[in-house]
Amino acid sequence: MNQEKSKNCRVIVDAMGGDYAPRNAVIGAVQASSEFSNSEIYLVGKRNEIENVLKTENLSFDQSRIIDASEVIEMSDSPTSSIKAKKDSSIVIGLQNIKEGKADAFVSAGNTGACSAASTLMLGRIKGISRPTIMASFPNQTGGFTAVADVGAFVDSKPQHLLDYAILSSIYIEEIFQKTAPSVGLLNVGEERGKGYKLTAETFELLKNSGLNFTGNVEGNDIFKGSVDIVICDGFVGNIVLKFAESIMPFLKGLMRNYADKSLLNKVQAGIAKGPLKAALKNTDYQTHGGVPLLGLNAISIIGHGSSSPLAIKNMVLRAIEMHDKNLIKKFEEAIGKYGKT
Amino acid sequence: MNQEKSKNCRVIVDAMGGDYAPRNAVIGAVQASSEFSNSEIYLVGKRNEIENVLKTENLSFDQSRIIDASEVIEMSDSPTSSIKAKKDSSIVIGLQNIKEGKADAFVSAGNTGACSAASTLMLGRIKGISRPTIMASFPNQTGGFTAVADVGAFVDSKPQHLLDYAILSSIYIEEIFQKTAPSVGLLNVGEERGKGYKLTAETFELLKNSGLNFTGNVEGNDIFKGSVDIVICDGFVGNIVLKFAESIMPFLKGLMRNYADKSLLNKVQAGIAKGPLKAALKNTDYQTHGGVPLLGLNAISIIGHGSSSPLAIKNMVLRAIEMHDKNLIKKFEEAIGKYGKT
Repeated sequence: MNQEKSKNCRVIVDAMGGDYAPRNAVIGAVQASSEFSNSEIYLVGKRNEIENVLKTENLSFDQSRIIDASEVIEMSDSPTSSIKAKKDSSIVIGLQNIKEGKADAFVSAGNTGACSAASTLMLGRIKGISRPTIMASFPNQTGGFTAVADVGAFVDSKPQHLLDYAILSSIYIEEIFQKTAPSVGLLNVGEERGKGYKLTAETFELLKNSGLNFTGNVEGNDIFKGSVDIVICDGFVGNIVLKFAESIMPFLKGLMRNYADKSLLNKVQAGIAKGPLKAALKNTDYQTHGGVPLLGLNAISIIGHGSSSPLAIKNMVLRAIEMHDKNLIKKFEEAIGKYGKT
Repeated sequence: MNQEKSKNCRVIVDAMGGDYAPRNAVIGAVQASSEFSNSEIYLVGKRNEIENVLKTENLSFDQSRIIDASEVIEMSDSPTSSIKAKKDSSIVIGLQNIKEGKADAFVSAGNTGACSAASTLMLGRIKGISRPTIMASFPNQTGGFTAVADVGAFVDSKPQHLLDYAILSSIYIEEIFQKTAPSVGLLNVGEERGKGYKLTAETFELLKNSGLNFTGNVEGNDIFKGSVDIVICDGFVGNIVLKFAESIMPFLKGLMRNYADKSLLNKVQAGIAKGPLKAALKNTDYQTHGGVPLLGLNAISIIGHGSSSPLAIKNMVLRAIEMHDKNLIKKFEEAIGKYGKT
């Protein structure tokens, strides 16, 4: 693999990824291309479909920056079998280009499982990292964010995996959000040291001796409370909490709709309430913050929500550029020897 | 243990349990006593403190229905050691009376861990039940409820435990909410059968062959969506999801406060929004529904939230009476042989 990097960040956007592909991905990529002039944005996917969007939306994009891929991994495809079966898919071709050093970062709102499996397989883990992690940012009560890793549904975790998640997340938060020594909590069912599973008890000891800013166990309510900067958990729990969190807004909307349906006065009140509620929750909109980074690999890979808007795609590209400019992969490599590893 | 039951339900309320004890517990018990005339309500705790509340609040309560207990298990006490050390605590004395057949149900808003440990130890598991469970009701988008078990933080679960949770919850929902053959989903990180841990994969097979109305795996977003009547999970995950859910309201309030603080107009808008938001969320208030039942024991034990209001206490008593009137313990016993057990 060619480790040479251009000074400017070269980002490949998966044109075929997401529920509104190729439209949203193409529009987002074109916007990123015109706004972030120091970077090179590429689109990978079915050329004719990409060109259709450009034409319909009246957008201009350098044709030479379209990378051909004839297949599409659908949102419903099985991750592992589809990356084997669809060698000419936008995800596989895009990551192949990253692997060959032709670009620095891959961004996709496509099939999360396929993106993470293909990224791990093709980009490879950073030496010393036992398992990569998907880190998500949850809004919290303080107006800031609580990072949670792993939300990637990697199961059968070992204490060493959770330590790796903590190291990777700490470096990420420190570099991207300029927060020195971010605090790390271990998600558990009680604050006491011996609580929970063997996994959590053993991870507690590893984190305690890691040199990271580990503050101890935290509970489910500490995520929204913002008690710590980073919450570490096994991918099974993290994925369930993430999906549960994503269902809060539809749930509230449903309840408000039921309320509004009861009377005309209710309808008017609910109408007025909508504005401030939406504004208050603005910062919690994942679109603003783009996708979730897959941390611990030899290159940058960012996975977006299936329903990503053009804005979300653009912000994912921006995040990729930041990670590249701050040389995060190198900083991850350096951190391995530093925290809790001998 | 005297298994004889009076026709009327005799409920012992822990006067010393909860953040606002003895006040809220005493007021709630007195209200229950006057409203549910067919039942006998008792209060267990420090007599002088109970009498003080009765006096201050100008309430009348039959003195002979106060059961003396000189000690209090504090909310912060370690569950297992406190039930051993404080033999004359309201929790231990209350449950002792249930064990001796002097009453039918115990209701407490005290230390959850101590209540569940003492209940399990003193009342004993129903024959054939491998582990009791705490089942919580989550409001859902349809305006109804999704039951989740286990939320009691029982760790190191085996497939058999999860099957027991499913049997107990199904009977409970069927009897208390008159829902025939309630649907059961297994909480997982994907819908596909082989997903998740060995525990979930094995539980899937047990549930599939149980005779219960098992519909397959569900994900974190299905709880608020109301995709199934009952969601079964390991107590570690369930407890984290429960605490996460409990933090949604403080989180939203915090965001609305931040919004209101930004300008006078925002303040006015947020003020108007408060009403409909509160009304829409009314049904989601746990106070209305009382506590969570501890299912699978030889008698009725209901645990309330530490911050239970008098209304919540009263509703816990009401739930206990319902469980008694519908002869739930007997129905649990009968269900053991019926579902997936040989």
